[in-house]
Amino acid sequence: MKAEILTIGDELLIGQVVDTNSAWIGQQLNRIGVKVHQITSVSDNEQHILTALAEAKKRVDVVLITGGLGPTKDDITKHTLCKFFQCGMRFDEPTYQVIERLFRERGRDVSATNRSQAEVPDACTLIPNPKGTAPAMWFESETTIFISMPGVPFEMKGIMEQEVIPRLTQRFSLPPILHRTILTQGIGESMLSDRMTEWENALPSHIKLAYLPAAGMVRLRMTASGKPEEMLMAELEAEETRLLPLISEFVYGFDDDVLEALVGELLRKNNRTVATAESCTGGYIAHRLTSVPGSSDYYIGSLVAYANAVKHEHLQIPESLIAQHGAVSEPVVQLMAQRVREFLKSDYAIATSGIAGPGGGTDEKPVGTVWMAVAGPSGVQSRMLRLGKGRERIIHETSLYALSLLRKMLLTGEIG
Amino acid sequence: MKAEILTIGDELLIGQVVDTNSAWIGQQLNRIGVKVHQITSVSDNEQHILTALAEAKKRVDVVLITGGLGPTKDDITKHTLCKFFQCGMRFDEPTYQVIERLFRERGRDVSATNRSQAEVPDACTLIPNPKGTAPAMWFESETTIFISMPGVPFEMKGIMEQEVIPRLTQRFSLPPILHRTILTQGIGESMLSDRMTEWENALPSHIKLAYLPAAGMVRLRMTASGKPEEMLMAELEAEETRLLPLISEFVYGFDDDVLEALVGELLRKNNRTVATAESCTGGYIAHRLTSVPGSSDYYIGSLVAYANAVKHEHLQIPESLIAQHGAVSEPVVQLMAQRVREFLKSDYAIATSGIAGPGGGTDEKPVGTVWMAVAGPSGVQSRMLRLGKGRERIIHETSLYALSLLRKMLLTGEIG
Repeated sequence: MKAEILTIGDELLIGQVVDTNSAWIGQQLNRIGVKVHQITSVSDNEQHILTALAEAKKRVDVVLITGGLGPTKDDITKHTLCKFFQCGMRFDEPTYQVIERLFRERGRDVSATNRSQAEVPDACTLIPNPKGTAPAMWFESETTIFISMPGVPFEMKGIMEQEVIPRLTQRFSLPPILHRTILTQGIGESMLSDRMTEWENALPSHIKLAYLPAAGMVRLRMTASGKPEEMLMAELEAEETRLLPLISEFVYGFDDDVLEALVGELLRKNNRTVATAESCTGGYIAHRLTSVPGSSDYYIGSLVAYANAVKHEHLQIPESLIAQHGAVSEPVVQLMAQRVREFLKSDYAIATSGIAGPGGGTDEKPVGTVWMAVAGPSGVQSRMLRLGKGRERIIHETSLYALSLLRKMLLTGEIG
Repeated sequence: MKAEILTIGDELLIGQVVDTNSAWIGQQLNRIGVKVHQITSVSDNEQHILTALAEAKKRVDVVLITGGLGPTKDDITKHTLCKFFQCGMRFDEPTYQVIERLFRERGRDVSATNRSQAEVPDACTLIPNPKGTAPAMWFESETTIFISMPGVPFEMKGIMEQEVIPRLTQRFSLPPILHRTILTQGIGESMLSDRMTEWENALPSHIKLAYLPAAGMVRLRMTASGKPEEMLMAELEAEETRLLPLISEFVYGFDDDVLEALVGELLRKNNRTVATAESCTGGYIAHRLTSVPGSSDYYIGSLVAYANAVKHEHLQIPESLIAQHGAVSEPVVQLMAQRVREFLKSDYAIATSGIAGPGGGTDEKPVGTVWMAVAGPSGVQSRMLRLGKGRERIIHETSLYALSLLRKMLLTGEIG
C-alpha cells in the first residue's frame, strides 16, 4: 500500500514556511506499514493542484493532502477538490454547530468568513476535527483515497491520530515495515562508516541501512521488510547486537530517544538534581532540559551568566582568573560548574563558556572554541570543543556534548 | 523561469528528517525572481529518482536536487544521475586534492570511502563546495538544467550562495516577483481577516495575499508580479499604507524581522540592558535573546528559577506570597521581574511563571495559564495568558508575548 503526501500552499514554495507536516505524517504512516512513495508540494493554484491530484492518483493508493482549508480567501483546496471530483457544495449543519459552539466558548460571534467553513463538497465523507473548526474530508475515486486536512499542525495531528490512522488500518491489510535507529554523538559520518564497513557489507538485502547526519550527531537507521514481523524483529535485534560493540562509545540512545529526556530519566532514577551555568549557550541547555515534561522533578534552575560581571558577582569567579585565562578557559568553566552547583544546591551542574561568534574570535581562540564542564558529587570533568563557525550550530552542538558528558558521568557511577 | 526542488532520501519520506533545505532554497530562488513550481521528495531508489528527474524535466527549466551525495553506501544520487544522462564516471584529481587537504587539516587520513567522493559523472560541470568534500554538479539537457547538491544544509547553503545563485542570475533574465510580509502577534487568523475584508477585496488581481499562521503569530504576505519592479514596489507600499492602520496594534515587524532581534536593536539604540527570570519558559527567552549575534551588548543574563526554592532564595520572593497567591500569579511574577532586575543590575527584566503541562493544572489555573511581567525604570507591567494545551507551544507563545510586551514598552517611551 503506497501513499503520497500532497502539501498545498505558496508559503511552502517560496520558503516562508518549512513543511513539518510531511515528516510527521510520514512517521505515522510508516509506523502502520504504509510506504510513503513521494511528498509533493504545490502552490495555491487551481490548475496546479488539479494536475498534482491526477498524477498522485496514478502513483498511489492513498493521497494525504494538507493546507488550503482555512477560512481566508487564499485557501482554495476545497473548491478545487469539488472540481476534481466534479461535485457541488453543501452547507453542513453539524459542522456549523461545532463552529458556533467553539466561538461561543471563546465569547465571540461567528463571522461570515467562519460560517463558510461549514460549506463542504457533497462527494466527500466528513471527518471530525477534534481541535479546530474545519473538518477533514475523505474522498474515494475508483483506485485511490484522497484525504484532505487543514495545514495547521496541531489540528492535522489530532485528525490523523484520532481518525485517519484508525480508518486506514481498518481498511487495508498492511505488511510490516520495521525500523531500528541507533543514535550516535561525537563522531562524523565517514569515520563511523569506516568502523562498520564489514558489518554493513554483510547486511542481508532486505535490511537497508541509512546514515542520517544532523548537527553534532549521526543517526543510523536499519529498515527491514519483506518477511513476517517476528522474523524481522529478531533479525534487526541480531544485527544490532553485532553492530553495537563497533561503535559503543558514541551511542547514546535508540529510535525516538531524546538526549535531554534520557538524562532526565537517569537523574530521576538516581534521585539526583541538576542546574546549569551558561555563558555561550545562553539558556539553551536549560531550555532543552525543561522542554521535557516533568523536568521540575530534577531540574533546579540556571544562572545564565552572559555578562562577565554576572560570572564574577554571582558565581564568585575571581576577576583575576578571568584576566589570567580568559572567560573561555578550563579553570573558569570548571569553577562556574562548581559554584552554580553550590549556588543552586544541585547534585550536578553543567557550565559552558565559549565563542559563538560571529565576533569575538582570536587566533588562539577562534570562533567555535568552547569549554564545557560538568560538576558532580565526585568532582568536575571538562572538555574543550573546536566547533568551527555558525552561531546556532555552536550553541546546539555544545548542548549535545554537555548533556552527553552528564549522561556518561551518571552512567559510569559518578552518581555520588 | 520555473524551478523544481527535488529532495532525495528515505529519511524524508519516513519522516525522520524534516526537509528544511527546500524552504531555504525556495527563499533564495524567489529573491532572484525564479518561481518554484513544485517541491518533490523521493526515496533513495534508482527507478523512483529516474522517474522524478524525467517528470521534472517536462515541468521546469531548472531542477535543484539535494541529498544522496554523501560518502556512504546508501547515497545513490551520483550513479543515478550517470544513468539519467547516460554517461560514465571519472576520477577528478582537483576534487581529491580538496578532500585530502581537508582531512590533513583535521589530522586524519583519507579513507577509501572518502576517496570515492572524487569520482564524478563525466557529463557534468563540477561546482566547488566551499564547506565540504563533495562538489555539486551542473548538468544540461536540451531544455532543462539539473543541479545536484549535498543534503547537509550548511554545505548546500554555501554552494547556493557562492555558486548557484550567481550562475543562475547570469544565465537567465528574470522577471521581478516582489513580496512584502507583515508580521502580527496576539490576534488569530480569522479575526485578522475580518478586520481587513474590505481592503482585501479591493486588492488588484496581480497582488496576491496569503495568511501564514504559525504558533502565536500570523504573517500576512503580499506577492506582486507582472509589472516592472518599480511599479510593483510602489503598489505594495501603497497597499501597505492602507492596510497598516486597520491592524497596527498587532504588527511587530516586516519580512524577515525576528522579534528578539528587533527588541535587541531597540535596547542597543537606547543604550539599555535586559535580564530575565524564567520559570515556565525555562531559559527559552534567554536562548532567543542570545541567539542574536552581538546580544552580549545588551543582554546581561537570566536566573532560570524552576524550583520554588530558587525563587525564594535568590529572588527573595517571600514564601508567604507564593503560599497565598501561588507561584503562577500576578504578584509573584511582578516581583520576580523587579527582583531579577536588581539582582542582575539590568534596565529591563522579563519574568514568566506558568503551567506548561502536561501535569500541574487545576480548575482555577488550567494548563496553559501563564503570568508574565516586564519591569523597567518606570515600573512593571504584567499580563495573564490562557494558551491552552501543548508544552512546547506554551513555552514558545509565552516568549512571543513577553518579547512583544518589552518591545511595546521600549517603543512607547517607557525607556526611563
